[in-house]
Amino acid sequence: MQDTDYMKLALELAKKGLGYVNPNPMVGAIIVKEGVIIGQGYHEKYGQLHAERNALNHLSTSPKDATLYVTLEPCCHYGKTSPCTKAIIESKIKRVVVGSTDPNPLVRGRGIKILRENNIDVTEDICKEECDKLNEVFFHYINTKIPYVIMKYAMTMDGKIATYTGKSRWITGETARKQVHLDRHRYTAIMVGVNTVILDNPLLTCRLNQGKTPIRIICDTNLRTPLRTKLILTARKIHTIIATSCIEEAKREPYLKAGCELITVEKADGHINLCELMKQLGKMGIDSVLLEGGAALGWSALQCGIVNKLQCYISPKLFGGKGAESPIGGEGIKDPQSAFWLKNRTITQLGEDILIEGEVSYPCLQE
Amino acid sequence: MQDTDYMKLALELAKKGLGYVNPNPMVGAIIVKEGVIIGQGYHEKYGQLHAERNALNHLSTSPKDATLYVTLEPCCHYGKTSPCTKAIIESKIKRVVVGSTDPNPLVRGRGIKILRENNIDVTEDICKEECDKLNEVFFHYINTKIPYVIMKYAMTMDGKIATYTGKSRWITGETARKQVHLDRHRYTAIMVGVNTVILDNPLLTCRLNQGKTPIRIICDTNLRTPLRTKLILTARKIHTIIATSCIEEAKREPYLKAGCELITVEKADGHINLCELMKQLGKMGIDSVLLEGGAALGWSALQCGIVNKLQCYISPKLFGGKGAESPIGGEGIKDPQSAFWLKNRTITQLGEDILIEGEVSYPCLQE
Repeated sequence: MQDTDYMKLALELAKKGLGYVNPNPMVGAIIVKEGVIIGQGYHEKYGQLHAERNALNHLSTSPKDATLYVTLEPCCHYGKTSPCTKAIIESKIKRVVVGSTDPNPLVRGRGIKILRENNIDVTEDICKEECDKLNEVFFHYINTKIPYVIMKYAMTMDGKIATYTGKSRWITGETARKQVHLDRHRYTAIMVGVNTVILDNPLLTCRLNQGKTPIRIICDTNLRTPLRTKLILTARKIHTIIATSCIEEAKREPYLKAGCELITVEKADGHINLCELMKQLGKMGIDSVLLEGGAALGWSALQCGIVNKLQCYISPKLFGGKGAESPIGGEGIKDPQSAFWLKNRTITQLGEDILIEGEVSYPCLQE
Repeated sequence: MQDTDYMKLALELAKKGLGYVNPNPMVGAIIVKEGVIIGQGYHEKYGQLHAERNALNHLSTSPKDATLYVTLEPCCHYGKTSPCTKAIIESKIKRVVVGSTDPNPLVRGRGIKILRENNIDVTEDICKEECDKLNEVFFHYINTKIPYVIMKYAMTMDGKIATYTGKSRWITGETARKQVHLDRHRYTAIMVGVNTVILDNPLLTCRLNQGKTPIRIICDTNLRTPLRTKLILTARKIHTIIATSCIEEAKREPYLKAGCELITVEKADGHINLCELMKQLGKMGIDSVLLEGGAALGWSALQCGIVNKLQCYISPKLFGGKGAESPIGGEGIKDPQSAFWLKNRTITQLGEDILIEGEVSYPCLQE
């Protein structure tokens, strides 16, 4: 086995933390001595032990002269736990192999420096790309303090998100829908516009076994969300935020009574200022927001530049219909030359459907 | 080399006939003796020699006791050329390996039977799936006498075929656009609705070097095509058909004078009856029609069940816009359960774009 093989095992371990560690990164660690894995661990839950600690706590033999594989640079600062560099040095581990360098301004290469100063041999950038990708949310959030926003929609092969009668159950098949629920588990919050609430009355929970339901956010400039919708009726059990520009106490009162949290955001162009909202959410420790609709909110989000990633599910169906809605509405761009563009695309087959993912960039100057 | 290896070479040869043999099938043939390829050929052009004949005409040594690999069952009837079975028997070839069985009612297994009756060893169905796929147009046309219809469109990742201002140059990149021109070369005719002619004023030629421009067909129920459009102005040089329900001589006259051919088709629901049009085109020897737009014609074509295949090009762009058009218009279906469905899908990466192709089936009962 080579360094990359062990790092891939560590990556698999890291992924077990998916959905449980936010806003911390997912991290996996493996300790190898004379070709034998003698310890392994991962960051399991926010506030609990780091991966390196978990690996050191589950050793089958002494780690003296062993090699530690860890997907992210070990921390060297006192946070919720004491620095991992300290534990590594004390363990007499001889060599450390690192995937990503920690983007956290409190660490950024300093962990590696400390290890080297203590005569530990450090190899960097092993499977760096995969390790970085795994924590794209963390990397973004730690640097900007603004949530990583993933715009998600499902459309037919002719670009429809519903029939002309407004029906959308279902566009995609079971495999794709499971993936959506995995993402609801993965990301910290989910956001929809008030029109989607009125039209679809969604619950926005994660329906996976032992899945974590995200914080639900409704963008509702003028507080039009009906009180008898599923989101409001379940707000006591599931953290539900309404982002609004309405400051009338009488209108806010019933939502507060129903258990909702209200965030006040100023208006911009008649709608709540989404950039401002993101800053507020970031301050609340929300590192990621899954934007699930509708078409008008999608356009506003693109326009103000808050969308980091697009997830476009395409089903092998055709609805037709001049009056059937397509995924992104609003005014739209005027010239193809100024289109938003997707970089670093991946295509995944999910049962009968396909998922295209990419990072959003603006404007399109690639041609 | 095994049978499948030689058949794959024969398939590559067959593809050289693409665009030149319609409404005949593409066929390739390879003759092998003691592990050496001693002859090869393909059907090069409609009306010219069949692949087997071309291979037998270019031999490096005697074909006695050799094996013939041919992508399609050899013909046994007198058409434009004398039967290939006759030539094979006379050549003293010992074994024939066949890809597809000929769907032509005049052949269908009878070629193979004749070979066997003459003590030639025949192996069938080698690379059958690929051989069948290569000639999907021929298989369809020979059995139905109706053209194989390919609906093609290019859309953004948010399902738009133009910006809200109607601009569509360009949705896709160069690689994808080249593929479109290869298909214009490949298929016999190209069809658009009158609205597309009015809005885009397209030329609909094949812009590949040595490419063959297809017969251009305009669906124009009431003869509204402006006389000063590119299609009409070039109708003397390029075969141009207008399918119309208008029988007023005075209105038809200028188009005839411009060099257009007019086909009269009865109306159905206020538009020309597309099923009827397809029957007429089939009778004219047109085996394939590339349907290139617009949204209303696409819906009508789906509705009357004439579309065999869909080609959906998706570019990694986002246009947004509630008023931006999506690929298929018309009334549309009411319930997701009755969606049109794409079977046997393939996904191809073409530069920055992707192409999803599939066979159209109706209704969607797969869930």
